[in-house]
This record gives sequence, C-alpha cells and structure tokens, in this order.
Amino acid sequence: MKTINIGILGYGVVGAGVAKLLKQKKQLLESRTGAVLNLMTIADIDTTTDRGLDLGTTALVSDAYKIIDDPAIDIVVETIGGETIARQFILKALENKKHVVTANKALLAGYGNDLVKTARKNLVDLAFEASCGGCMPIIKSLRESLVANNIKSMSAILNGTCNYILTKISKDGSSFEDALKDAQDLGYAEAEPSLDIDGFDTAHKLAILNSLAHGMEINLKDIHVEGIRNITPVDIEFARSFGYTIKLLAIGKFHDDHVEARVHPTMISDSNPLSHVDKSMNAIVIDADATGQTMLYGHGAGMMPTASAVLSDIADIARNIILGIKRRVPILGYPEDNIKIIPILPMKELYTRYYLRFEAQDHPGVLAKISGILGENNISIKSVHQKGRNSNGKVPVVMITHIAKEAWVQKALKQISKTDSVIGDPVVIRIEEIAQE
Amino acid sequence: MKTINIGILGYGVVGAGVAKLLKQKKQLLESRTGAVLNLMTIADIDTTTDRGLDLGTTALVSDAYKIIDDPAIDIVVETIGGETIARQFILKALENKKHVVTANKALLAGYGNDLVKTARKNLVDLAFEASCGGCMPIIKSLRESLVANNIKSMSAILNGTCNYILTKISKDGSSFEDALKDAQDLGYAEAEPSLDIDGFDTAHKLAILNSLAHGMEINLKDIHVEGIRNITPVDIEFARSFGYTIKLLAIGKFHDDHVEARVHPTMISDSNPLSHVDKSMNAIVIDADATGQTMLYGHGAGMMPTASAVLSDIADIARNIILGIKRRVPILGYPEDNIKIIPILPMKELYTRYYLRFEAQDHPGVLAKISGILGENNISIKSVHQKGRNSNGKVPVVMITHIAKEAWVQKALKQISKTDSVIGDPVVIRIEEIAQE
Repeated sequence: MKTINIGILGYGVVGAGVAKLLKQKKQLLESRTGAVLNLMTIADIDTTTDRGLDLGTTALVSDAYKIIDDPAIDIVVETIGGETIARQFILKALENKKHVVTANKALLAGYGNDLVKTARKNLVDLAFEASCGGCMPIIKSLRESLVANNIKSMSAILNGTCNYILTKISKDGSSFEDALKDAQDLGYAEAEPSLDIDGFDTAHKLAILNSLAHGMEINLKDIHVEGIRNITPVDIEFARSFGYTIKLLAIGKFHDDHVEARVHPTMISDSNPLSHVDKSMNAIVIDADATGQTMLYGHGAGMMPTASAVLSDIADIARNIILGIKRRVPILGYPEDNIKIIPILPMKELYTRYYLRFEAQDHPGVLAKISGILGENNISIKSVHQKGRNSNGKVPVVMITHIAKEAWVQKALKQISKTDSVIGDPVVIRIEEIAQE
Repeated sequence: MKTINIGILGYGVVGAGVAKLLKQKKQLLESRTGAVLNLMTIADIDTTTDRGLDLGTTALVSDAYKIIDDPAIDIVVETIGGETIARQFILKALENKKHVVTANKALLAGYGNDLVKTARKNLVDLAFEASCGGCMPIIKSLRESLVANNIKSMSAILNGTCNYILTKISKDGSSFEDALKDAQDLGYAEAEPSLDIDGFDTAHKLAILNSLAHGMEINLKDIHVEGIRNITPVDIEFARSFGYTIKLLAIGKFHDDHVEARVHPTMISDSNPLSHVDKSMNAIVIDADATGQTMLYGHGAGMMPTASAVLSDIADIARNIILGIKRRVPILGYPEDNIKIIPILPMKELYTRYYLRFEAQDHPGVLAKISGILGENNISIKSVHQKGRNSNGKVPVVMITHIAKEAWVQKALKQISKTDSVIGDPVVIRIEEIAQE
C-alpha cells in the first residue's frame, strides 16, 4: 500500500483535530482510500504543550520549513490561520510542488487568486473544504455535485458565533452585550470578537463561495459587510410579530452581468429553512437552476467538524496521488482560463425590502412626516406598526417597505433624521424573501 | 478537447432531463470538466413521442443494444427503472466495459451487490447519486466528504410523496385518502401508489445508504417497512400537542455488531431539523463521530433535480476518463474486499419509545386494565392523555412510553386487544429522539 506523507503547519485546535483523526482513524482511512496517510511532521512554535495526543513516530518541530522543504512530504496542511506567515508558508509549499490543504478563509478571501495561480504554475492542488461551513460539504457540492447547474442565489449562515448570539437574544430576550458575554464564556466567541460579530468572517466565506458558484475571481473588497452589534431584542420581537427571524446572512446572487455579495443582519420568514437554524449551527441554501432549492446544515466550526473537512480534502488528494494524477477538479470549480471578473453590485444599487424602526416624538403629524419623506423618495410602505409610547415618551414606529432601492432608502433616512420627528438613527434591517418551493 | 460519448437507456422523464442538461448545458459542462460530453444515442421503445427537445446529432433508437454494444459509447445512463430489463441492460453494459450511471434504487437495493461485483470484475464504474434523495449529494457525502467519520446514525425523509401527504394531513386536517387523491392530482403520487406510500421506495434508499454508511453489503430484505396508510389527523393532532411531528423516516443506526434499518411513521420533536421538512422536500440527518449532526435538504425527485444528480456522476466519470483513470472511489465507499455482512437487528429486539392510542370503552377500570397489562410487560408509561368521550361513546386514550422493547409492546398490545376494554387495533407510532446539539 502506498504511503502518503503529510505535514501539518500549526498545532492549535484544528491542527490537533487533524492529527487526532489521522492517528485514530488510521485503519478506516487506509481501508477507504487505499493509502497509508502518514502524519510525518507537525510544526508549531510551541513544541512543549501537551495536546493529549500520542504522536508516535510523528515529529513535532518548531521550524515550518522542516515540512515545507522536506522532499518526502506530499501534502502540507496549513492550520495556522491569518494572512501573513500562513501565506508565506503556503506559497513556498506550492512552489515546492506540494499539495496544500487549508482551512484559512481570511487568507483565501484576501489572496486566494494568487494562491490559485501559484498552485496552477506548479501543477499542484490547493484544497479548502474546511474554509467555509466547517464540516458541511459546500465546496465539494459547488465544485462537483452542482456541476451542471447555474447557481442563481445562495444565502447562508456561516458564522456560529453570530448565530449563537442572535439565537440567545431571540430566545432569552438578552441584550447583545449579555449574549456576547455568554458566547465568550462558552468559548463560542473570542475575547476580541470583531472578526465574527462585525461580519468579516462571514464575508471571507462569501467571497470564496461566490467565486466557486459563479466562476469568478475571488473578490472580498467589494462585499458590503454589516455585523450584528446593533441588533436589539426590540427588533427581534417586532420581527417575530411579522413572522420573521433575524439572521446574519451571507447573500450571493447571480445576475447576467454582475453579482450581489452582501453580509448583513437579515429578516427571513419562518418558511425559509434558514430560520430554523439555531445556536452555533451553520447552513447554506443554494438555489440552482436544475436542482431548485437545496440546503446543507451542520457545525460550521469546532475542532473535529473542521478536521473532518480537512480529512476529506486529504483523502481526495491521496486518491489522486495513488492513481498518479493531480488537479482532477479545478481549484475554483472552473478552469483558471475560464474564471471571469464579475463586478459586485454597489450596495446603493440594491433593490430589496426593508424593515425600518424609528424612535418617534409623540406629537401629531409625525407619522405623516416620516411617510411623506419616504413617499417623496419613491419608497412605498407595505405596513406600519406603532406601539404605545415608551416610558421615555417616545413612540417606536416600525415600517415594512415594498421593494425599494438602497440609495432611495439611505437618502430618505438622512432626510428623516434631520427633522425633529425622530430621535437618533433609525434601525434598518433588510428583508430577504426566498421563493417558496 | 476529448470527447466522451454517452448513451441513455430510457427516454422518460429522467432520461429526458439528462438529455436536456447535456444539450442545454453543453458549454458549461465543457468548461467545467474539460471534456465534450456528447450525447450520442438514446434508446427507448417509444421513438416517436416528441419530448420537446432538439436532439441534433443524437440518435434515438428503439434497440438498447445499439448503445450497450456500441464500442464508441463510454458511459451508459440507465433511466428505465424497474428490476428486470434494466438489470439485464446494466449487467451487459458493465460486461462490455462501459461505465454505468443509474438512478434505479429498486434495482440497486435488490441486486446492487451483484452489480458492484460485475463492475469490479470488468474494472468499470457504477455511479448512482440520483438513486437516493434526488439532487441532494448524499452518496458523494457518504463516499467522500465523511471519509474520516464513523457514521453513528442516519434518519431521513426520502419519499416526497409520503412527505407531501403527511404535510397535507398535518396542515389541512385532510384524511389520508383525500391527501393521497390531492397528491395524485398534482402528479406527486402514482395511480398505483403502493411503492411510495407503503414505504418500499424509502426502504430501497435506506438499503443503499446503510451500505455506504457502514461499509456493509446492501441488504433490503431484513429492513422493517411500514407505510403511512394508517396515519390519521387525530394522531397528528395528538402528536402536535406533545410537540411532535409525524414523518415517514428511514432510520439507520450503527451498533458494534449489528445495524438498525427500519422505515416507519415516526414522531419527532420540533427541535429535530427534519420536523421542518415539508411538502415534497427530502432531507437526511447524518450523525457522525467527527462532524456531529449534519443535514442535507432538497428535492428528492423530479425531472431536473434527478438529472442534476445524474450529471454529477457523469462529470465525475468524465474527469476520470480524461485523466486515464477509473474506479477512483470504491463504488460503495469501501473497497469490495472490506465490505462486511452486518446483520440488521430484528424488529422485535428494537428498544425505542412509543406513542400508543387506544379506543377505550368508557367504563370504570379501563385505564387500570390497560396500564396494568403494559406494566406487567415491563413497559413504563411516561404520560397518559385522555380526551372527552367521542360521539360513539368511546374514549381515545393516548400513552407515551419510556424506552421499551418492541417485543414487549407487541405482546402487551395483543393482550390488551383481547380484553373488552378497547375496540379495534391500537395505533402504534414509534418516537425517535435526536440528540440535541
């Protein structure tokens, strides 16, 4: 049986998970792939902390180049994360003709096009199933299963931290701050949580998925990103009364000459399967022209779910090595020569429906003023909801609009803010309708 | 660019869908696979009906052997269905060293082990993504994505007809007969609906999935199968009051020396993601040791969703042909030499929870009688629900049991039926708890 030598860069949570699977599932993996997947070397600056794993013959070294430059290593697994040293290591590994498996979405979103080019030049594979949606087979589905489909749209919950916090606010009426604190105590959120809660991690994943879905270059910088810091129990309660749930969604839609790519809190109706995805679970709904609506659901993070996805990439590459082939499926699903640059729609050009909540002064004519300004800006209102006055004498006024242009809405809101009818900034949450099947 | 020649056996709904995708997505498929997927010949006994498709250079013939024996054909797609002529054609195609793609779950469930052996002997591939769950990538997930996992359990809604009928009864309070009629009018159910509503189609799919999940030979005959004919609005209403939904589930569980494999109406709690899968949609929840709980959701049938799955198989084989390889992934996920015969647990040995509904006589001591017999048979009752008497003077008594053995329950029910306390046969619906994640 052929032996395939693997090196892992980074012995943190994910790296240790990969090592654990390679050790504990040795027999299973041999039986299923027909190869010995030999974990030859792990490199980490910390070579002393005990990760509770019997490494056997595997070397633990502090110098990454002991893997990257080792001619015996076939597959380099990068689980360091970040965009600086990981990038340098991956580029060098690819140049050394090693296949690379990574879970690093930030790196792929920022520099993926370069990495793909380098892999191509060196005729090796670059695989990243674990970068989006943890153990859910999103990448394989887009690259292989949906091969005969044009993807019309994707909407996805891709950050477990945000989904946990939103579920917590929704179920317990917690404030955002309390829900974040709870997520931090449980280890779902980092001490510095911005990457997750401000939507950037979700945007990284969307940049990758949009590329695979539509055969386009990875484009992170034009994705509109909003996080969940401003979500309150009040808005979640209003949403519920309309049959909506609030989720942080990554939305990618294909139009003939452009795509939409945006990350923001979104109201979705209870008939949308994503509305039932709670706590730290992730899910993606893909609407494709032949399949119609499909959904994948699972753990989007965590040691073993992420390691499982890394192993599926390793096994794919191992099967190729045994058969003497490589680059069987194009890295981004389409051959590099056919990958297009497709522009992302500027946010101000978006047409969608809106939930608007104002803190209105409780005096006559306020509603007429607000709705007048909206009307002047071509925004028609589907429904208005006004609750009794608050203890502070202010009245929350909620409006659901018909489809309107983002530019109109922003302009109208600026005008409304300038009047003495409302206090503070209005809350704006976009509403996403998924066609019912 | 290399040309790969494809022949389709059977020009019905699925065959026409495959032909349509091959024609309409010609450019997309060439771009993504790097091969010309040339639909060379279609064979059907009916060569005259217009299926609304411009066949161009594709020949439509009545003799299947024009495909099976044509040395130019690389891939044979079987979309005839059934277990007689389709079997004969597939065996001959495999013997002629052609790769075969099929959606034929009945054939695979009944004769799959033989087909796998024949494919092995002739060193060709046999692919069947479309056989289970339509466009959902179940087969690819089990064979490839979950390669480093041991599958602990699967539970799945695999028949859109049954799910449509159960949803209809649940939402509208229809009788089974009316819901079936509605499904027939909409084309979801056949005029002779037994294959679907009696659970056989679901069992075919479970036999295939169990094999892939657990590395075992396909075993249909030992699967316990019950359909949905006896489901009433009354039981659905009771289920709802306990926070349960009734679905026809395929359940496959791995134990150390045996597996469970059963198809029956099942009560699941609202926190089970399958409980939100309505109408004709299918879904599978897979609980694996590394990934934890994942779910795939999508259209389980229909022309284009099924054709999309067939195309993913064709593309996989095409990529192999271009690279000069074959049999890259074992047909059943494990190499044939490692496939075990794992016994299926006899139903009477099953331990689970039960919903029992009796039509009780409205006289003193009846409840004591029923619960006494259950107690004598070691069955403990979690809760009892008794509603006011019916117009016929009978009282519906509903009991939810703790975990009990099927043999005990069947014995107790027989004893209870012999008393004068109840009228008719009790309703028995098993309850399935999915561990919450």
